[in-house]
Amino acid sequence: MNKQIDIQLSANRKEKPSFSSLKFGKTYTDHMFIMDYSRENGWHDPRIVPYQPITLDPAATIFHYGQTVFEGLKAYISENEEVFLFRPDENIKRLNRSSVRMCIPEVEEELALEALKKLVSIDRDWIPNQEGMSLYIRPFIISTEANLDVTPSQTYKFMIIMSPVGSFYKEGMSPVKIAVESEYVRAVRGGTGNAKTAGNYAGAMIVQEIANAEGYSQVLWLDGKENKYIEEVGSMNVFFKINGEVVTPGLSGSILEGITRKSVIELLQHWGVPVSERKISIEELYDAHQNGQLEEAFGSGTAAVISPIGELSWKNEKMVINDGKTGELTMKVYKALTGIQTGKEEDPFGWRVKVD
Amino acid sequence: MNKQIDIQLSANRKEKPSFSSLKFGKTYTDHMFIMDYSRENGWHDPRIVPYQPITLDPAATIFHYGQTVFEGLKAYISENEEVFLFRPDENIKRLNRSSVRMCIPEVEEELALEALKKLVSIDRDWIPNQEGMSLYIRPFIISTEANLDVTPSQTYKFMIIMSPVGSFYKEGMSPVKIAVESEYVRAVRGGTGNAKTAGNYAGAMIVQEIANAEGYSQVLWLDGKENKYIEEVGSMNVFFKINGEVVTPGLSGSILEGITRKSVIELLQHWGVPVSERKISIEELYDAHQNGQLEEAFGSGTAAVISPIGELSWKNEKMVINDGKTGELTMKVYKALTGIQTGKEEDPFGWRVKVD
Repeated sequence: MNKQIDIQLSANRKEKPSFSSLKFGKTYTDHMFIMDYSRENGWHDPRIVPYQPITLDPAATIFHYGQTVFEGLKAYISENEEVFLFRPDENIKRLNRSSVRMCIPEVEEELALEALKKLVSIDRDWIPNQEGMSLYIRPFIISTEANLDVTPSQTYKFMIIMSPVGSFYKEGMSPVKIAVESEYVRAVRGGTGNAKTAGNYAGAMIVQEIANAEGYSQVLWLDGKENKYIEEVGSMNVFFKINGEVVTPGLSGSILEGITRKSVIELLQHWGVPVSERKISIEELYDAHQNGQLEEAFGSGTAAVISPIGELSWKNEKMVINDGKTGELTMKVYKALTGIQTGKEEDPFGWRVKVD
Repeated sequence: MNKQIDIQLSANRKEKPSFSSLKFGKTYTDHMFIMDYSRENGWHDPRIVPYQPITLDPAATIFHYGQTVFEGLKAYISENEEVFLFRPDENIKRLNRSSVRMCIPEVEEELALEALKKLVSIDRDWIPNQEGMSLYIRPFIISTEANLDVTPSQTYKFMIIMSPVGSFYKEGMSPVKIAVESEYVRAVRGGTGNAKTAGNYAGAMIVQEIANAEGYSQVLWLDGKENKYIEEVGSMNVFFKINGEVVTPGLSGSILEGITRKSVIELLQHWGVPVSERKISIEELYDAHQNGQLEEAFGSGTAAVISPIGELSWKNEKMVINDGKTGELTMKVYKALTGIQTGKEEDPFGWRVKVD
């Protein structure tokens, strides 16, 4: 089986969009990575080809039973034109953990990392070199067998596509309003909440639509069993600074194991800021707010890196946090992370991976 | 916008497989139905075309965020060559209910029904005319917009494909062994359990794999909140005859609203057999078994119609039901339903829909 990445360059390079008017996830680079899986041959024929549509049988199980996993990470270009990925090995490890949950065969970590680097290197002209911009990278696996029986597919495709993204904070960092969701549930322990898989996102869309219509950016999810403990915010992990200590919900099995989340925790520990991963109920948070101890709140994720939360709405109560302004520690975490990601700051953790 | 179903017949009809060796969901008929949706034009261009692959952008949201719904129903051919669908209007209504949950635009019921009938009529030679066989019909909708933003797609495809299926009970009806699942959870109230959407099935595959490896056909799912109340079995609804009364879990919001389930309830009511839809805990079931009151158990669904349960395994306990044999009422329900479906029996309910 061929395990060498074959490269077929595009003869017709697309015109690059104006980076200042980029909308997230609408423009794709010139190339993509693709690799096939079959029971007989395992993962085989890794290749970089011109970005192109894919053709599937209408009975392909991806369309019916949703066997799929994905990842999201970014490539940054530094002022002296070095290209970096941020902890890509963590993404590949998580992709494989998600795959195990979804009965999808794991990929070889080293090969996947090589594929990421090669693809970014080939399309490096697509990385916007302006403040806050980056190249979003989407590795994903889909099941492709034509089979209506509800059983794991015998064939898969692992692909990587890339999309240049504008700054999340074009008009400066501005804290968002979040509604605590008490009717819908994102995930429950024993389900697929800690896997990065399509179904979790499809199920959440209706809630996002309702929240947007009511003037909120995102929702804060509570646990599915007791509707009591805080899980995540939208598609980000969430942190609260309460009386000097930073608290984030522990990995309960239904929470996504965010790589930005992990990095925030490690950064805070490095700085000597008290941080704990534990259960935190919405009542506890409300009480902390009433007592004046809820000092800051923010979400963490690949898209925004850090997203300050200015207001939480729960039932008929509104909790305004830090006067609706970005907290000091929140900003410090944001600057430290983006500094490391973009090569502006030292990287004492070895998180940056250089692309040649 | 064109709302008339356009028909383009296949010039190369496929060779039909030997119906006696059919495997479920592996062979497809000569034609398929397809209709597109866009924000501007709504659902448009309904057409029947030769069965063929579909081509999508790799960024199509179906591959990433799983916005999709599906249905399953069957066409039967009677001894005097009449072709029937079983309650297809219920499938289309449920498709639309699922779509609402998944932020997918609803289809026009009448047009969808017409599409079903026309497609079945065109490929009627594909309906196996042997005992217990039928033509499985799979309507489904997928989101197709190329967009990595987690937001409802602006474009969709509604398709119908069909696959001839052999008899579920080739060697006679034989009760299955089921394991009560206490670790994994299929769905939780507030989630997507009552929508017929891909993510529910993808998440259940690992459990099915484990159950199969341990010698069970399916698992019995408990509720996600308390891990206590019975929900469904595998991808079927479930019924228990306890001390003369038939009990099935009520529609909690996390249980699929089975059309066979509904038909079983209506049939039992018609016969004057006591039947109730209510919460039933696994402990209650266990106690009923210990007291000798658990008389019969069966699953209901489109694939098997009725599937008798001979043994339930819960923790270290094994509950053998009716000596592991198919119960009398179970068999009566099976015969009545399949009799109506295949045109062998009278249809006092008007469930059969004739295809011209």
